[in-house]
Amino acid sequence: MATVVQSKKDISRLEDYLEAIYNLNEEKGYVSAADISERLAVKPPTVSNMVRNLADKGYLEHRRYRGMRLTPLGERIARSVIKRHRVISELISMLGVDDQTAYIDTEGIEHHVHPSTLRRFEKLAEYLRDNPQTLKAIREFMEE
Amino acid sequence: MATVVQSKKDISRLEDYLEAIYNLNEEKGYVSAADISERLAVKPPTVSNMVRNLADKGYLEHRRYRGMRLTPLGERIARSVIKRHRVISELISMLGVDDQTAYIDTEGIEHHVHPSTLRRFEKLAEYLRDNPQTLKAIREFMEE
Repeated sequence: MATVVQSKKDISRLEDYLEAIYNLNEEKGYVSAADISERLAVKPPTVSNMVRNLADKGYLEHRRYRGMRLTPLGERIARSVIKRHRVISELISMLGVDDQTAYIDTEGIEHHVHPSTLRRFEKLAEYLRDNPQTLKAIREFMEE
Repeated sequence: MATVVQSKKDISRLEDYLEAIYNLNEEKGYVSAADISERLAVKPPTVSNMVRNLADKGYLEHRRYRGMRLTPLGERIARSVIKRHRVISELISMLGVDDQTAYIDTEGIEHHVHPSTLRRFEKLAEYLRDNPQTLKAIREFMEE
């Protein structure tokens, strides 16, 4: 039986895998363990173990000769992880942080933001998009 | 010789120790390994190893019968860690996230934010403090 309690690190890793599998499927229409290994820079045996674990938990299923795919549950989590990444990345970029730094910071931050905080980041970004004169004033203030 | 390359996790842990030692010294005027153990919820032998490591690296020094204290270098890092915590926590709280969630998120995020991103978070918080009508509009927009 799988343990119920998961560490934060376990959850982060699980989210990274689901995100990678979702994106690879979108890009190629097919996902192999070798693809995941390359995308996440993780050794193949580690990927095999994790994939088995994800299948046991009901997040993905293997299809004979056609690689693996996420279950509806796995896909739902992957979509929320991807959305969270986009929200954080967008807000940081809006504030004028360069693309590479924004990417690295988002990768670091994304697993640590509570849904209610994320919702506020999202609304803040939306507000600044809708009110470009405010964003402009903030950006100018930052350069002072 | 100490290795030069440190993992992100090592750096996070180092920052947590320096922050705890700084704060304990401010609060009590004295820091023992037992205090750190309690503050960081880490076992005493682990604290002893880390304290030795921090002393080897020049971040703290032992004073006979008076516990340990940070060196100027250790103190400089501790201050920047504490300031970073304050900046992130303030910005998240300003957006209306409750105190407990803001604290947990700050603890998770703080080690992952690039100095240039942090500077922008700080300026954003400063702007919103100086322009309460904008903050009010954003907060109202969030409640919609």
